[in-house]
Amino acid sequence: MKRRSFCIAVFFVFLLACSATAGAKSALVFQTDFGLRDGAVASMKGVAFGVDAGLAMFDLTHDIPEYSVWDAAYRLRQTMPFWPAGTVFVSVVDPGVGTDRRSVVARTKGGQFVVTPDNGTLTFIEESTGLDEVRLIDETKHRRAGSEESYTFFGRDLYVCVGAKLAAGLISFADVGPVFKGAVIRISHQKAEATNGALRGNIPVLDIKYGNVWSNIGKPLFDTLKPKVGDRFEVTIFKDGQEVFRGVIPYVNTFGDVPEGEPLLYLNAMMNLSLALNMDSFSEEHDVSSGPEWSLSVRPAKK
Amino acid sequence: MKRRSFCIAVFFVFLLACSATAGAKSALVFQTDFGLRDGAVASMKGVAFGVDAGLAMFDLTHDIPEYSVWDAAYRLRQTMPFWPAGTVFVSVVDPGVGTDRRSVVARTKGGQFVVTPDNGTLTFIEESTGLDEVRLIDETKHRRAGSEESYTFFGRDLYVCVGAKLAAGLISFADVGPVFKGAVIRISHQKAEATNGALRGNIPVLDIKYGNVWSNIGKPLFDTLKPKVGDRFEVTIFKDGQEVFRGVIPYVNTFGDVPEGEPLLYLNAMMNLSLALNMDSFSEEHDVSSGPEWSLSVRPAKK
Amino acid sequence: MKRRSFCIAVFFVFLLACSATAGAKSALVFQTDFGLRDGAVASMKGVAFGVDAGLAMFDLTHDIPEYSVWDAAYRLRQTMPFWPAGTVFVSVVDPGVGTDRRSVVARTKGGQFVVTPDNGTLTFIEESTGLDEVRLIDETKHRRAGSEESYTFFGRDLYVCVGAKLAAGLISFADVGPVFKGAVIRISHQKAEATNGALRGNIPVLDIKYGNVWSNIGKPLFDTLKPKVGDRFEVTIFKDGQEVFRGVIPYVNTFGDVPEGEPLLYLNAMMNLSLALNMDSFSEEHDVSSGPEWSLSVRPAKK
Repeated sequence: MKRRSFCIAVFFVFLLACSATAGAKSALVFQTDFGLRDGAVASMKGVAFGVDAGLAMFDLTHDIPEYSVWDAAYRLRQTMPFWPAGTVFVSVVDPGVGTDRRSVVARTKGGQFVVTPDNGTLTFIEESTGLDEVRLIDETKHRRAGSEESYTFFGRDLYVCVGAKLAAGLISFADVGPVFKGAVIRISHQKAEATNGALRGNIPVLDIKYGNVWSNIGKPLFDTLKPKVGDRFEVTIFKDGQEVFRGVIPYVNTFGDVPEGEPLLYLNAMMNLSLALNMDSFSEEHDVSSGPEWSLSVRPAKK
Repeated sequence: MKRRSFCIAVFFVFLLACSATAGAKSALVFQTDFGLRDGAVASMKGVAFGVDAGLAMFDLTHDIPEYSVWDAAYRLRQTMPFWPAGTVFVSVVDPGVGTDRRSVVARTKGGQFVVTPDNGTLTFIEESTGLDEVRLIDETKHRRAGSEESYTFFGRDLYVCVGAKLAAGLISFADVGPVFKGAVIRISHQKAEATNGALRGNIPVLDIKYGNVWSNIGKPLFDTLKPKVGDRFEVTIFKDGQEVFRGVIPYVNTFGDVPEGEPLLYLNAMMNLSLALNMDSFSEEHDVSSGPEWSLSVRPAKK
Repeated sequence: MKRRSFCIAVFFVFLLACSATAGAKSALVFQTDFGLRDGAVASMKGVAFGVDAGLAMFDLTHDIPEYSVWDAAYRLRQTMPFWPAGTVFVSVVDPGVGTDRRSVVARTKGGQFVVTPDNGTLTFIEESTGLDEVRLIDETKHRRAGSEESYTFFGRDLYVCVGAKLAAGLISFADVGPVFKGAVIRISHQKAEATNGALRGNIPVLDIKYGNVWSNIGKPLFDTLKPKVGDRFEVTIFKDGQEVFRGVIPYVNTFGDVPEGEPLLYLNAMMNLSLALNMDSFSEEHDVSSGPEWSLSVRPAKK
């Protein structure tokens, strides 16, 4: 009886161990500006698969506009909140590849990791979620074996190695390398803020597929204007401080609440104030784009 | 001896349990019109990964033309027959997002599931495979926690939650919500049929990459004309009932059976009658497209 | 005590068996010219998932230019070195589909597998890694059940079936079909070679996203010129033997080593000699493309 119990106990410990191991693996999520037309992304995944054949790998996007660190930063901020703690993001938008820019892994206050060159990619996630600790990648430890003479593909030769090992639980965060005490690089832009009864903010990105215009003005800030569905707001859009668009637009829940072709102000799926034309493209119609140089102001329309 | 046997028996039960659990998980397959340039699809996958880190996720396509429920319906019908029973498809082409259109899960007669707004997306799969039962999604049960104020991204906040739980075996079909007794929405189009020695049908879609023209006339119906390889057929193509193309075309097995640039009539990979130019684009050459407004007729050519 | 030890021994055998089984599964990597806008790739994956729901599937690319066997061949050579032995690549770029071209599985000298029509797709991997053995696919054994009358989608109806079974360990390489003793089809092109103090080579492909020009001249051959960083080289580019570009270009480690817009000669991430403009497109600026008809010569510039 005692032996049988022991036997069963061992089973359960083993079962637990199995589950624990399985549960310990985190998702590895890739973002690059490489596109998917050549073998670059698949090479990175091959390296990760070589680290651990059981890793769950996903793509955020590989269509970041070439060299656009700004977009890379925004896509992380848009997507990371929907992944569990422990998820490892490898972001390779790296115009300075081969120069002496820092290579880091940041741990966010939400317990997620971002492996990236320190070039501004962390701008929005630092601003929204916050960074808990940043470590410099120790290249001597983590470079892919045999890659010592390759200078132009850190994504495959360094970042994915560190990311895969972290996601697989083969190294701890401390194993990445020494703590970086300085500030990570930030791209300057109009913060969301209230001034004189109006809200000001930035246009970080377009909802490109539909031409909608997204701001960084979140619901809590917008709520300070006590908006009710159906209220009308005066919206002004600026590029480098020059006015590009001005109009009065109703605040509604969703596209179908205004006639086709008409403008609407709404909270997008991240609960940020946004502009759209129902079944048409606001950005094309009004020649509005996004980036650090774009800003907008929103105030209640005069009755 | 007895204890040893018991021990071994437990091992095998455990082994079986392991396999059974592993086998119980179904694939989760996504289809949207979001494209892959932003973080929308990755956000949906993050939510699904949070439901069950062991889910096998796949993409049907994310390049459905914006708002084209017709194309969404066709891509499901093209792809679903090649996936096993139990597979869960989450299709988010949702021009009516935020309005009061129904959100449903359909179980097909083949034992697969489609999570979708009820907006015509089920048109072709109902016509071909047939639907076994349709259930309304109970939003109070299945909405993503914290998404109560978001109105514009049902894919992430509702559909993927239901789909992931179904695929992971965490809920049964009955747990989705109440049975929907009515008819799902269908997009009207020319059914495949024989009339006066000719066949009539619809052009549901182009083989876009190559410009081939696919009809909904299946092999069994075509066989009623007793076609032999090499036979010639008169093909007429209509848009909104207006003739757009008329020609006599040989029926062959494959592209290489006619000279480069020449037209052919063949059975495509879904065994539907199709038109192509060898190494060229039939649709561009003859300005033929697809959709509910396109139809064609096929009859044996006069000798 | 003895029984307990036995018990524990069984556990460990079981544990080993589990790991061994898990370890036995190889990645299945897809490459096609189908694009991702329709259901073709998803149909292939559905068939593979039906073979083994636990397979790890990846995409090399589905954006090979239509019918470009040359590009398919190059993408394999670019990517395969970064995947472990045992990985199974299914490459479906198949302009001759439905004609009597051979269908083969090649085992490379690195222990990887390529499932492909024998149409030149193996050109570069044979040249670089080398082929260990090639087998003809026995269609009577491996065709997808129910696909006997489909002639146009071998990727879904044959290649993926063989590839999935190989990757899952359900068949051995010998089970694929009989050994093919002949030579696989090769696409002729300028080999990398040294002549009269200059190097000659081919331009197999562009780094399309950035417009960089990649040669097949590897580091060992380039090293015969004893290059030092900063040295200048005269580069001439030919199409069908006609000179298209001639210039003197410095050899550097990476893009940032020359001013924006300036040309550089560097070793790309595969350690092949390459040409670029820093932050601009060499191929567009100088109207240079790639393929079997493109070649270049590189010699030390006169001081």
